[in-house]
Amino acid sequence: MASAGTGKMTVNPDIAKERRNAGFHVENLTNFIYHGPERVRRRRYMQNIALQDPVMKDSKPWAFRTREEEYELSLRKQLHVLQRQKDLGITDEFDKFYYNEATAPNENNPVGLHFGMFIPTIEKHGTEEQKKKFVQPAKDLKIIGTYVQTELGHGTFIRGLETTATFDPKTQEFIVDTPTLSATKYWPGNLGKTVNYCILMAQLYSQGKCQGPHMFLCPLRDLTTHQSLPGVELGDIGPKFGFNANDNGYLRLNNFRIPRINMLMRYSKVLEDGTYVKPANSKLSYGSMVMIRASIVGAVSRALAQACVISVRYSAVRRQTEVSPGGPEAQILDYQTQQYKLFPLVATAYAYHFAGQAVQSNFLNISKEIEAGNLQQMPVLHALSAGLKAFSSWGASAGIEVCRMSCGGHGYSLASGLPKIYTNITPACTYEGENSVMMLQTARYLFECAMMVQKGQRLPDLVSYLSMDLSAKSCMTSDVALGCLVKAYQHRAARLTNAATAVVQRHINEGQKPTDAFNMASTQLTWAARAHCHQYVVKVFVTTVTEANIDDRTKAALTTLCKMYAVNGIMENLGEFLQDQFFNTDQVDILTRKMMTLLADVRPDAVALVDAFDYHDKVLDSCLGRYDGNVYYALYEYAKSSPLNEKDVLDSFHKYIKPLREGQATSSLPSRL
Amino acid sequence: MASAGTGKMTVNPDIAKERRNAGFHVENLTNFIYHGPERVRRRRYMQNIALQDPVMKDSKPWAFRTREEEYELSLRKQLHVLQRQKDLGITDEFDKFYYNEATAPNENNPVGLHFGMFIPTIEKHGTEEQKKKFVQPAKDLKIIGTYVQTELGHGTFIRGLETTATFDPKTQEFIVDTPTLSATKYWPGNLGKTVNYCILMAQLYSQGKCQGPHMFLCPLRDLTTHQSLPGVELGDIGPKFGFNANDNGYLRLNNFRIPRINMLMRYSKVLEDGTYVKPANSKLSYGSMVMIRASIVGAVSRALAQACVISVRYSAVRRQTEVSPGGPEAQILDYQTQQYKLFPLVATAYAYHFAGQAVQSNFLNISKEIEAGNLQQMPVLHALSAGLKAFSSWGASAGIEVCRMSCGGHGYSLASGLPKIYTNITPACTYEGENSVMMLQTARYLFECAMMVQKGQRLPDLVSYLSMDLSAKSCMTSDVALGCLVKAYQHRAARLTNAATAVVQRHINEGQKPTDAFNMASTQLTWAARAHCHQYVVKVFVTTVTEANIDDRTKAALTTLCKMYAVNGIMENLGEFLQDQFFNTDQVDILTRKMMTLLADVRPDAVALVDAFDYHDKVLDSCLGRYDGNVYYALYEYAKSSPLNEKDVLDSFHKYIKPLREGQATSSLPSRL
Repeated sequence: MASAGTGKMTVNPDIAKERRNAGFHVENLTNFIYHGPERVRRRRYMQNIALQDPVMKDSKPWAFRTREEEYELSLRKQLHVLQRQKDLGITDEFDKFYYNEATAPNENNPVGLHFGMFIPTIEKHGTEEQKKKFVQPAKDLKIIGTYVQTELGHGTFIRGLETTATFDPKTQEFIVDTPTLSATKYWPGNLGKTVNYCILMAQLYSQGKCQGPHMFLCPLRDLTTHQSLPGVELGDIGPKFGFNANDNGYLRLNNFRIPRINMLMRYSKVLEDGTYVKPANSKLSYGSMVMIRASIVGAVSRALAQACVISVRYSAVRRQTEVSPGGPEAQILDYQTQQYKLFPLVATAYAYHFAGQAVQSNFLNISKEIEAGNLQQMPVLHALSAGLKAFSSWGASAGIEVCRMSCGGHGYSLASGLPKIYTNITPACTYEGENSVMMLQTARYLFECAMMVQKGQRLPDLVSYLSMDLSAKSCMTSDVALGCLVKAYQHRAARLTNAATAVVQRHINEGQKPTDAFNMASTQLTWAARAHCHQYVVKVFVTTVTEANIDDRTKAALTTLCKMYAVNGIMENLGEFLQDQFFNTDQVDILTRKMMTLLADVRPDAVALVDAFDYHDKVLDSCLGRYDGNVYYALYEYAKSSPLNEKDVLDSFHKYIKPLREGQATSSLPSRL
Repeated sequence: MASAGTGKMTVNPDIAKERRNAGFHVENLTNFIYHGPERVRRRRYMQNIALQDPVMKDSKPWAFRTREEEYELSLRKQLHVLQRQKDLGITDEFDKFYYNEATAPNENNPVGLHFGMFIPTIEKHGTEEQKKKFVQPAKDLKIIGTYVQTELGHGTFIRGLETTATFDPKTQEFIVDTPTLSATKYWPGNLGKTVNYCILMAQLYSQGKCQGPHMFLCPLRDLTTHQSLPGVELGDIGPKFGFNANDNGYLRLNNFRIPRINMLMRYSKVLEDGTYVKPANSKLSYGSMVMIRASIVGAVSRALAQACVISVRYSAVRRQTEVSPGGPEAQILDYQTQQYKLFPLVATAYAYHFAGQAVQSNFLNISKEIEAGNLQQMPVLHALSAGLKAFSSWGASAGIEVCRMSCGGHGYSLASGLPKIYTNITPACTYEGENSVMMLQTARYLFECAMMVQKGQRLPDLVSYLSMDLSAKSCMTSDVALGCLVKAYQHRAARLTNAATAVVQRHINEGQKPTDAFNMASTQLTWAARAHCHQYVVKVFVTTVTEANIDDRTKAALTTLCKMYAVNGIMENLGEFLQDQFFNTDQVDILTRKMMTLLADVRPDAVALVDAFDYHDKVLDSCLGRYDGNVYYALYEYAKSSPLNEKDVLDSFHKYIKPLREGQATSSLPSRL
C-alpha cells in the first residue's frame, strides 16, 4: 500500500507558490479587514484560547454524530464556554465575538437565544421589578429562556398571531392559550428541550378587547426537575436542513395561567383592574430590528468568505485536464470559467463585509437620536437594513452553492465543509423577516421617496440620488472609473424606482385599489429595491477602498476587487442598465472586456485574498480548505473514519443479501470467479 | 388542548376551491404529459402495487433514521423490489420505471448501479465468453458490482486517471494498482459496502506502453463471506449532503492480480503475448453517454416538478398578511412576488420535461445510424445532450431552492420534503460530466459551427439557425407571438456564438496559442452554449404545444405556460437580447407587461398545473405538499414524533445543566417563580 498520509506533511507546492506570487502582503489586508494590527492580534489570541481548549477538541468529525450527540456535545461545549468566559474575564464584545467564532464553529448554541434574546429582551422591555426578579436567575442559568413568536400558521406578519393572553382580574393572572392548530408555536430556537421559560408573544385581551401582540414571561418546565408543566405541551420539531444541534421547538398552551406581573410592562401595561395603558411610542422597538438585520449582513458575508476560502484554496491545488496534449494538468484556478465563478464571489464577500460594517455604523450614528425619541432617520435606515438583509442573504446563499459546485464532486461530501456552511446560513433568507417581505418594505419606502420627488420634496442623504436626471447617459470610458460605476448603479436604481412607481400609478389610474395596484407592481418594485441595495453596496465598497489608509499594493488589489464587484453586477443585470440605452454598445463591449481582464488581474492574488480573511483550519473544518492544501490526504482520512467502516462486512449482508441469493441462485459458484 | 389533527380529515377549503376554479381538466393534461390515458392508467396501477406493498411502509419518517438504518432499510426494500418485479413479471421498461419511482422514493438504491451500470456495461463491452461467465451470476446477485472510475484527484478528465493495469504475460494476469494517494478511487456508488465486484477504469500498460484507460472486471470481496480480498482496501467515504443510503466508496489496490480475461475485450484487446489491439472505432461508446445525459434532463425535470407541486400547493393554503386592515389574510399564492417565484418554475418543469423527451427521441432516431457506424449526427447530438444536461441540472437545482425558500421557514424543515429533493438532484450538476466542462464541450461545437458558417459550409438542422442574418431586429408585437419568441432565442444564441468566436479569433490574432485563446474566451463561449440550450428548450416547448393533440382549454393553459417560460427567460437574460438593440425599448415594455399579465393568467390554473404531474403523496413525502392541504396537521404530527421527544427531559439536562447551575447559583429559587 502506498504510504498515503503517513510521514511529515508538507505544504502543497501549488498553494505555496500562490502565496509567494501574491502582489500584496496578506497581513496588511487582514489588518484592514479587522481594523488594525492590535485587533488582529487580539482576535487571534482569543481564538487560540478557544482552539487550544481540550474540551473543544472533537474525537470525530461533526458529520459522524447523530442529532442527539450533536445536541448534547454542543450543549456541553457551550456551557463550558460560558464558564470559561467568566473565569477568563472575557467581557469585551469584540473579544466575546471572536472567542465564540472559534468555539464549536459547526454547532448551533442551545443556550444562544437565552443570552442573545431572552435576557436582553427582559432588560429592554421589563420593568425594574421584573429585571430584579428574572435577570439574575437567568444569568445563573436557574432560568433558561428563549423568544417564542412564530406559529405554525404565522411568521413574518406578527399581527396575525393567534396565541392569546387573556387577563383575568379576579385572579390577577393572564390565561395564555393556543386556540387552534395553526396557533401552535413552531420554530423558536432552543424551545424544544433546553429552556424552562420563554418570552411568549401573544395577542393581549383585556376587558374584552384585543390590544394586539405583547410579550409575556411564560414558565414552561419545572425549574428543578425540568419536566414540562401541566397545561404546557412542548417538544423538538424534528430534523431540519441544518441547525440540528438546535432543538427548535413547538409549544401548545392549554389555558395556562401566569401572574399579571409576567407581562413585560416597561412600555405597555395592564393595570390591576384590567385597564390597558398604551406605550408612549410604538416604533421604539424598531431600533433592535435594524441592528439585528444589519448584523445579518455581516454574518452572511463571513459565511460566503469561508466558502470562498475553501473553494479558492482547493482550486489552487486541484489539477484537471492537460493544457496541451500529454502535458501536465492545469490548476483549475487557471481556467477562466472557474475564475468567473469564484472571483466575483470573493469580491462579494468583501463587499458585504464592508456594507455590513457601514450599515451598522450608520445605525450607531443615528441611534442616539432614536434613543432620544427622534425617529426621523428611522425610515430610511429601516428600509436599507431590511433590503440589505435580503439582498445579502440571497446573494451569499446562492454564492456558497456556486462555491460548493465549483469543487466538483468533492464539494458534495460533508468533508468539504461547504454543505454545512450553506445549510447554516440559508435560513437567514427567512428568519428576522422573510426576504421577499423585506424587499417589499424597502420598495414601499422607495415608492414613497418617488412620490416625494414628484412633489419636489427633499430626500434623506441615503436616497437623495433618486432625484437624479435620468436622461443622462453613462460617463463610462475604457478606464472604467469607480465614479462612473457608482453613477451607473444609481441610475439603474432611480430608473427602476420610477418605473415601478409608474406601474403602481397606472394601475390606480385604471381603477385598482391602492393595495391591489401595489401588489400588481410588486415584482417590479422588488427590482427597484434590489437595485437600491446593490447601489449602496457598490458605493460603500468604492468609498471604503478610496478612503482606505493602506499601502499601495494592498489598495491596488482591493481596488481591482471593487471594480470586479461593480462590473460583474452590471454584466449579471445588464438588461436593467440597457433598457433605456444608458450604456451604448461600445460601453458594453468595454465592460465585457474589462470583466475578463479583471479575472486575469485577480488571478495571482486569489489565494492571498482569501487567506486575508484569516480563518483557522479548525474554524473552516474543511478537508478542501486546509491552509496546507493537503486535500487528498484529508479526504482519505475522512473516508477511513466513516462510521459505516467500523465493520468490513455489514450485518445487512447477512440479513438480506445472503438469504436472497441462496434462495434463488441458479448457478453455483466458488468464492472467487 | 385543542383537538389538533384528530377526527376526520377534510380537504383544506382553499385548495379545494383552487381545483374547482381551474380553467382546464387536470386529467387531460396528465394524459398529455404521460402519453395518453392508457399509459396513465398503467402508471398508476404500477405505482399502486408499489405503494400498497407492506414492505414499503415506513414506521417513521426517513429523516429520523441514522445513516446505517437508511442504508439497511433501502437495501432491504430494493432487494424486495427485485424479487417482486420477478414475481409479478414486470419487464416492460416503462412499467419498471414507474414501479421504481413509487418504491422507496426517498432512498437511493444500493444495488442501483449493479443493474443500471455494471450488468449493461458487461453486456455492451464484454466478449461473448465474458457475458457467459459474468452476466447470469450478476443477475442472480452472486456477483454484485458497480462502475469504478472517479479518483480522488481525477474526475471528468478520464485521461488523467492514475490507476494502472499492467499486463504480465508470464502469468496471463493484469496487475491492478493504486500508485499514488490521488489515484485512490473515490465516489463510485455502492462501492463501499455493497458490491463484491466492479468494473474498474484503469490505464492499460502492456509491453511497456500505456494504451490509455480501459475497463476491467475486478473482484473486491469474497463472494461467500463478503470480506474484502487481500490487496484490496475499500470502504464507505462517509456522509454527504444527500444520497446517504448510498455507500459511495473508496478503493485502493495493492498490486492486485486479475486474469487477462477480466479485461472487457469486445472492442480493444490484449493478446496473450501482450499485443494491444485497438478498437475499430473509438467513438462507439459516445452513444450511451448521450443517452445518460438525456435521461438526466428528464430526472431533473421530475425533481423540479415535485418541488413545484409542494410549493404551489402550500402557497394555496398558506395565508399571510391582511390585504386590507383588519381583513382576512391572503393566500400567499395571490401575491405577485410569490407568483413570480413559482410560476416560471412550473413552466420550467414542463419545459425540461418536453426537452428531455425531445432529446431522447432525437437520440433514438439517429441511434440506428450510429449502431451501423454512421457517426455523422453524433457531434451535434453530443453537444446538445452535454449542454442540456448542464443547463437543466443547474436550472432545476437553483429552482428547487427557490421553491424551498418560497415556503418560508417551513421549507427548511426536512418535513417539507424539499431539502431532500434538492440534495438528491444537485449532484446531477457534477456527475456524468461536470457542468462547466459540459458547457465548454457544447461551446466548442458551436465554435466549430461558427467556423463552418464563416467558410460557407452547411450546418446540421439542430444548429442551422446559427447562420441567420444577425442584423434583423425582433418581430415582437403586443400579441407576443410564439414564433417571435423562438426567433429571439435563436438570434441571441447565434449572436453570442459569433461574439465568442470573435474573441477566440482576436486572441489568436494577438499571438495567443489556440488553447490559451479558447480559455480566455471560455466564459463568453459558455454564454453562447447556454443560449443554444435555452433556444432548444424554448423551441421544443413551442413545437410541443403547437402540435399537441389536446382539447382547447388544456392547450390554452399549456400555451400560456410556454409563453411564460419564453418571456421569463428573456427578462432574466435581458442584456443578452438588448446588447445589439435586437429589441427596442417599446418591445421591452411589451414583454415586461406581458410577463405580469401571464402571472395573472396562470394564477387560477396554478394548482391544477402541478396536480397534473400526478405525484402520489407518498412519492412527494412532504408535509407541505399534501394533496389535501392539511399541512399544519402534518407538521404537528411530524414534530411530535421527533426522536428527541422520546423523553420529556433529556439526559443532557442532568449531565450538564443541573451540575453547572448547582455549582454556581447565587440565588436560591423555588421550582416555579
